[in-house]
Amino acid sequence: MKPLLKDIRQNPLLWLLAFVPVVFAAAKLKPDAQTLLFVLSVLAIAPLTVLLSHATESVAAKTGDAVGGLLNATLGNLAELVIALTALRAGQYMLVKAAIAGPIVVNTLFILGVSFLLGGLKHHVQEYNRVSARMQAGLLFLAVVALLVPSAVSHVDTASSGFTQKLSVGLAVLLVATYGLGMLFSLKTHRELFASAPPAEGGEAPWPIGLALGTLAGVTLLIALVSDIFVESVQKAAEAFGMTPAFVGFIIVALVGAVSAMPTAFSGARKNRLDLSVGIALGSASQIALFVAPVLVLVSYFIGPTPMDLQFWPGAVVMILIATLTATLVTNSGRSAWFVGVLLLMVYAIFAMTLYLLPPRAQ
Amino acid sequence: MKPLLKDIRQNPLLWLLAFVPVVFAAAKLKPDAQTLLFVLSVLAIAPLTVLLSHATESVAAKTGDAVGGLLNATLGNLAELVIALTALRAGQYMLVKAAIAGPIVVNTLFILGVSFLLGGLKHHVQEYNRVSARMQAGLLFLAVVALLVPSAVSHVDTASSGFTQKLSVGLAVLLVATYGLGMLFSLKTHRELFASAPPAEGGEAPWPIGLALGTLAGVTLLIALVSDIFVESVQKAAEAFGMTPAFVGFIIVALVGAVSAMPTAFSGARKNRLDLSVGIALGSASQIALFVAPVLVLVSYFIGPTPMDLQFWPGAVVMILIATLTATLVTNSGRSAWFVGVLLLMVYAIFAMTLYLLPPRAQ
Amino acid sequence: MKPLLKDIRQNPLLWLLAFVPVVFAAAKLKPDAQTLLFVLSVLAIAPLTVLLSHATESVAAKTGDAVGGLLNATLGNLAELVIALTALRAGQYMLVKAAIAGPIVVNTLFILGVSFLLGGLKHHVQEYNRVSARMQAGLLFLAVVALLVPSAVSHVDTASSGFTQKLSVGLAVLLVATYGLGMLFSLKTHRELFASAPPAEGGEAPWPIGLALGTLAGVTLLIALVSDIFVESVQKAAEAFGMTPAFVGFIIVALVGAVSAMPTAFSGARKNRLDLSVGIALGSASQIALFVAPVLVLVSYFIGPTPMDLQFWPGAVVMILIATLTATLVTNSGRSAWFVGVLLLMVYAIFAMTLYLLPPRAQ
Repeated sequence: MKPLLKDIRQNPLLWLLAFVPVVFAAAKLKPDAQTLLFVLSVLAIAPLTVLLSHATESVAAKTGDAVGGLLNATLGNLAELVIALTALRAGQYMLVKAAIAGPIVVNTLFILGVSFLLGGLKHHVQEYNRVSARMQAGLLFLAVVALLVPSAVSHVDTASSGFTQKLSVGLAVLLVATYGLGMLFSLKTHRELFASAPPAEGGEAPWPIGLALGTLAGVTLLIALVSDIFVESVQKAAEAFGMTPAFVGFIIVALVGAVSAMPTAFSGARKNRLDLSVGIALGSASQIALFVAPVLVLVSYFIGPTPMDLQFWPGAVVMILIATLTATLVTNSGRSAWFVGVLLLMVYAIFAMTLYLLPPRAQ
Repeated sequence: MKPLLKDIRQNPLLWLLAFVPVVFAAAKLKPDAQTLLFVLSVLAIAPLTVLLSHATESVAAKTGDAVGGLLNATLGNLAELVIALTALRAGQYMLVKAAIAGPIVVNTLFILGVSFLLGGLKHHVQEYNRVSARMQAGLLFLAVVALLVPSAVSHVDTASSGFTQKLSVGLAVLLVATYGLGMLFSLKTHRELFASAPPAEGGEAPWPIGLALGTLAGVTLLIALVSDIFVESVQKAAEAFGMTPAFVGFIIVALVGAVSAMPTAFSGARKNRLDLSVGIALGSASQIALFVAPVLVLVSYFIGPTPMDLQFWPGAVVMILIATLTATLVTNSGRSAWFVGVLLLMVYAIFAMTLYLLPPRAQ
Repeated sequence: MKPLLKDIRQNPLLWLLAFVPVVFAAAKLKPDAQTLLFVLSVLAIAPLTVLLSHATESVAAKTGDAVGGLLNATLGNLAELVIALTALRAGQYMLVKAAIAGPIVVNTLFILGVSFLLGGLKHHVQEYNRVSARMQAGLLFLAVVALLVPSAVSHVDTASSGFTQKLSVGLAVLLVATYGLGMLFSLKTHRELFASAPPAEGGEAPWPIGLALGTLAGVTLLIALVSDIFVESVQKAAEAFGMTPAFVGFIIVALVGAVSAMPTAFSGARKNRLDLSVGIALGSASQIALFVAPVLVLVSYFIGPTPMDLQFWPGAVVMILIATLTATLVTNSGRSAWFVGVLLLMVYAIFAMTLYLLPPRAQ
């Protein structure tokens, strides 16, 4: 436990862990204070995702490069997956889909934008490895296109639900298969093309394997339990704050889920290692499209009230496509300056504003 | 006045200034000859925009680099802005929106296309500065995406006008803020990335400051007065010529407004300075999206009969997106040959043809 | 005839020529066995397209570079054109349009994907000539955009058929003119930018001119006759197999028509000559958009029951756009590895699956 406690002392974000017991207590004592529960659960999930990502890295560090890489890649979006699974079990498909679309937009616009802005404020023009950035952007583009084909093709042409259902399952199988091949590609045959995480520094030394595995299991369970409270309270809280469900799912949940990736991405940009920031942002977005989304569709046949399809509402399709295309075009040049970050953040702000103002019935 | 008269003697385009008094006389004597007034006002506006751009450059040259660049950039699309403001005051929102969308398409397809064609007929393959072209294309892409997000997201989802109204105002504020940061970027922190206009040659020596300021004020007033006649006559004239309002706004007004940018862009291409042509075309298009469009929205709260939103009709959204994406992809390679120009012009011709044939009720 | 017979002995694909007499016999003896006739006609068309392409190359080889290139380019998609003309005469516009859209998608996703995959399995990372690949991708992008503008602009705005009709004719004229200029560009002024076919090897020596011309004429006639049987049987056969007409046109017909291009493209990739594969795939797709499509529109005024327009159903527009944009972005980097091929094929598989599942009334 010592390394864990040391980490907590050193990382102020982890002090928020205090909210984990608070949210459970509050759920017991004031089960109807939905707005309070919502705020508390958001505050509790954020540090848990940081802990989860450190535990994953520690396990990965112990198990050798290939298996470690696999673990890191597969568990990298575990928090998002757990939250989405909870929403799935509760039958809140709107929230599940926002939990797929949101992280793609957050990674390609917000994390990339802040990285470019922070890096650009320190360095005049930043250059990064064009070859790998381009290939990763290409993979992301294709992955997202694959995810969106059914929405794009079918929302115009048909509303027959049998069609969408069958298509979503077939698509999920194809996406997962592609994800497997992608792992083979990035971890085995062409690993040199992908930026690897830097050796952990200072207080972030890998934990002993026992502690890491225990933390992984314990924290996942805690996230699941807090997600329960979060999903239950989100609707009421959104109403109380005057926020639309789309805004909560797309923006709030996605930002909370991405908290753990931010420190590495942003400090990489400050250290003029934009490769790392771009790799994290694009890799994470690809993973949501190729792994989290299809797993949710397939799992919905077992745990949801009814099967879920991959039909997104038209506005979400437009946002995902624009975000991905933007990231593809922007990273294409392998150079960045602060204003590129400003523009990415502006597009993100416009999305957020649109979702905030969108009348609920239109979603 | 001498330098002004010298300019007029040397530049045949300025001989069209003779139409300025003619159009005022005609408006007095034959207020109902709408078709005549339309033709005369078009012929009068064209040379005025050339004069305006020369006056702006002269003021810019006198005020030093930073302020001069700011003036040049901000007043570069003054003619378009004045015409659009006149249409706004008359409540002709269709024409105002065409005056936003048209110049974006004209710059990215027509001016770029003619530049590539003229340059390519003289030089086998032309190379230009890829770094700045890419960055400018990236800025343009993001600016246009920002402009279109509300149309793209909302035309599918909702027609609630309260939503579109609020979104348009919020968006306008964001766009103007981004424009300010963009000025800081291109004129101060990263000015070396942006192609600067070449020193004026021959007959185009900068005017004395007094003449320049006087011309600026006088010509702006004249354009406003001629625009009045233009906007009033355009609808009737369009009918007489069998043209749709969309065609007039998108094609005729936009081409007239862009006349002043053409000589520099085209002669740059002939002199194998494609950097300059690409900079003018992409910069001008960005400026419309980031500055002219939001200013019109905000101003509409004070001078229009009702506030204007940024909702474009779907066909315009498609055209703007295609034009921008095309310019982004084409300038991405940093090389050009004559056939690239032909293809850009063909896409422009197809847009023009589509608008010409489009039944008016569909717009 | 000796070189022809030698070719047939050496190329197992040509053994399928045996199905040509079989399909005629079957059409006479069992005119109602639609499913059988469909399968036989597909098996007969495939080797005929191979023969046609060899005959075209032989004529081209004899007539010198410029005329030869022109012939090669113009007759390169002759098989697709003949099949589409037969469908046009039968008034099956759905099939004609699928025969335009299908080959674009097959070339940009399937042929490119298999080339990248086969090449990547043999070579770790393949580099190819970025300059020409980019220019060709740019041309393809613009050509496809031109083809789609009317569908994109008008399907949202109007259903007035007079408008679509007039627009399609005007567009066809523009496209054919552009095609002519494109020939001038790629065969005369800038021929060095375009990968030329490698000298024929081994058994594929050019035939004597008499044999080549005779084969050209004879095979074209045979393809026309077999197409007749194919077009007549396709609807019934599709029903029997549970396939939608869109799937048959988009996938089956397009794959059959592209058979002749596959050996060269795939063996080029294996020999690390990706330039060749990319050139074939992108060039062939451009040709469909700039030449085959407009010719079909113009010819429809003479041979079809009613004139045909260039309005595609929305799903086809999305697929063509995505396929073209994907090819443009992927070839932009000038590098490839096996996983890029996998992703292209996955997008293709998703399109195929979507079309297979799509309820017929939605098409």
